[in-house]
Amino acid sequence: MLELRLVQGSLLKKVLESIRELVTDANFDCSATGFSLQAMDSSHVALVALLLRSEGFEHYRCDRNLSMGMNLNNVSKMLRCAGNDDIITVKADDGSDTVTFMFESPNQDKIADFEMKLMDIDSEHLGIPDAEYQAIVRMPSSEFARICKDLSSIGDTVIISVTKEGVKFSTAGDIGTANIVCRQNKTVDKPEEATIIEMQEPVSLTFALRYLNSFTKATPLSETVAISLSSDLPVVVEYKIAEMGYIRFYLAPKIEEEDDMKP
Amino acid sequence: MLELRLVQGSLLKKVLESIRELVTDANFDCSATGFSLQAMDSSHVALVALLLRSEGFEHYRCDRNLSMGMNLNNVSKMLRCAGNDDIITVKADDGSDTVTFMFESPNQDKIADFEMKLMDIDSEHLGIPDAEYQAIVRMPSSEFARICKDLSSIGDTVIISVTKEGVKFSTAGDIGTANIVCRQNKTVDKPEEATIIEMQEPVSLTFALRYLNSFTKATPLSETVAISLSSDLPVVVEYKIAEMGYIRFYLAPKIEEEDDMKP
Amino acid sequence: MLELRLVQGSLLKKVLESIRELVTDANFDCSATGFSLQAMDSSHVALVALLLRSEGFEHYRCDRNLSMGMNLNNVSKMLRCAGNDDIITVKADDGSDTVTFMFESPNQDKIADFEMKLMDIDSEHLGIPDAEYQAIVRMPSSEFARICKDLSSIGDTVIISVTKEGVKFSTAGDIGTANIVCRQNKTVDKPEEATIIEMQEPVSLTFALRYLNSFTKATPLSETVAISLSSDLPVVVEYKIAEMGYIRFYLAPKIEEEDDMKP
Repeated sequence: MLELRLVQGSLLKKVLESIRELVTDANFDCSATGFSLQAMDSSHVALVALLLRSEGFEHYRCDRNLSMGMNLNNVSKMLRCAGNDDIITVKADDGSDTVTFMFESPNQDKIADFEMKLMDIDSEHLGIPDAEYQAIVRMPSSEFARICKDLSSIGDTVIISVTKEGVKFSTAGDIGTANIVCRQNKTVDKPEEATIIEMQEPVSLTFALRYLNSFTKATPLSETVAISLSSDLPVVVEYKIAEMGYIRFYLAPKIEEEDDMKP
Repeated sequence: MLELRLVQGSLLKKVLESIRELVTDANFDCSATGFSLQAMDSSHVALVALLLRSEGFEHYRCDRNLSMGMNLNNVSKMLRCAGNDDIITVKADDGSDTVTFMFESPNQDKIADFEMKLMDIDSEHLGIPDAEYQAIVRMPSSEFARICKDLSSIGDTVIISVTKEGVKFSTAGDIGTANIVCRQNKTVDKPEEATIIEMQEPVSLTFALRYLNSFTKATPLSETVAISLSSDLPVVVEYKIAEMGYIRFYLAPKIEEEDDMKP
Repeated sequence: MLELRLVQGSLLKKVLESIRELVTDANFDCSATGFSLQAMDSSHVALVALLLRSEGFEHYRCDRNLSMGMNLNNVSKMLRCAGNDDIITVKADDGSDTVTFMFESPNQDKIADFEMKLMDIDSEHLGIPDAEYQAIVRMPSSEFARICKDLSSIGDTVIISVTKEGVKFSTAGDIGTANIVCRQNKTVDKPEEATIIEMQEPVSLTFALRYLNSFTKATPLSETVAISLSSDLPVVVEYKIAEMGYIRFYLAPKIEEEDDMKP
């Protein structure tokens, strides 16, 4: 039997909204250690990995490992029926082909339960090895989202270049070129407004803006984002989920030479 | 001659927005006692009844009974030109085929008058007998609107079941099933947040969500809604209009057996 | 070399949004005295004239007169990437076929530069003679915008009639007629809320609402608007840009007799 109770139910709503644009169907994996998901986007270019550790739930019972296949649009339709202050409980009986989402209003006046059929989804779980990155950029998540959105109005791809001084985002398109430089800045009033560069060596990589823009749907989950870059590895865009886990997006750099771009 | 002056003109704007989705053309009936409307929706399934009593107007003059046929979309276009703080006066001369809406800004700097041609609309006025209902549910109107909207994302019809403990709204659709229970709750800080069940006997009836969602366009008119249910009668969804009258929506229950729904 | 630095960069964003609906491509003319633009709308019915005087910029360097042809939608795309608190610098080298927009965040953490190709645009600069107007109406710009929008839901043209007492806006359409009268009112708490009529003689002129609605895109630039009317001249709708200049829209009155309108 599975029963997960999350007082801050709005967090689950935000998680769904974060990945729904990228992934249509996915398996949610439950084990004693936590609630997780790993899925490729429909074009098999980007990968999402979610972890919500069991300690982060007010109540967490998972008698045996369970993999629940769900259509994320349908889950999202149900979770959107939860109020932002509602407590959400996810329940499934062993061997059952359904999952139940229960929403309780803060004063217990209103109790809703939504039952959904589970799906069989083929998926292979990729092992993602821990890696050393040439550079890690930590910056306000809203700033990163704004930059990706702004550059999308000019071009399709972005070159992210990291030096000790800062990180540069460059693009080019029919109407012109754009460069946005964010300087390292640790001396801010609030730590979540800092831009911090951890760099082993300078790195410059090209990515499709379309995917980065999808990743930024996770912005409401965290005030900061960490972007880990290495020449021979997919970029990792990570949003921490307070005291519970994270959502990580992986995207391989574009490797073709783009001679017409002079960042 | 007809001349009705309403200082709180925004109320008339809200009334129009409440019924405009349901009814296209309708007769507004004016008499010494008040300003009223009764109309079927275009598919002849639901009925709207509006009453604004003469005492609620700052000035009310109606020399003889008058029935004014109007296209509600056109009335709405004109009323949307009134500011939310404007005083609205409705005027018609005896025998005239036009009606005039006059809008005065609070400081009298801006005066607008909109004149509209009246229409001939055939309509029969249905007598709606007073009835005893098996159950009457009073609840916050925003809560009822939210429930109807949420369930619409799952199914097309709702089963409303009333017991002493509370009221249950259930639906089923392709993606799953949903049940929302609102418990009776009289001990709230503000009376308009209470959920109160007046019940003679338990009742369970099925309705098309499409119509209930239309009814909830009246939510801005009142903080509470009263839902009156009886097995052999149309449901009445009533929004009181402060100290002036009401808007009531009537809808017959669906009678076909729906075996595949297990609320 | 050209280098114009404007601390209140949002002003340039608002200027672009004001004219972008009306004009597709236009030359921005830079001289020692200021930054200006004059352009007809694509149907050659309305004229826009913009002036930002050099004194209004924090830094203004223009070594020789320069006319820079730009697609306004592309400029708008770039300027929308500037934050509302950003400092904007416009730069162009002599003889260059590009212009650069530089955006600096208030704390200098983020610096963006956007480079755009210039276009060759044929344009003749019309001399607009100073004229005496029969009547000038000054009123809150938001009020004028609201009236143009409201009347558009009823008719296509508006008759603007000025007398000593006030200004009347009238329209007629399939669903009825509308008259909105704004009375002269100088005794208001805030001067920008006044409606002031300067009148040599009464005047009544007809205009296409479509164009007036386009002009009101400049509403965010100024709290007041001045409407200058004469029987034999285009109306001038002017929005002052604080301490820097103005944006003026010119539109010829409609001259056909419209017998079916009785304002």
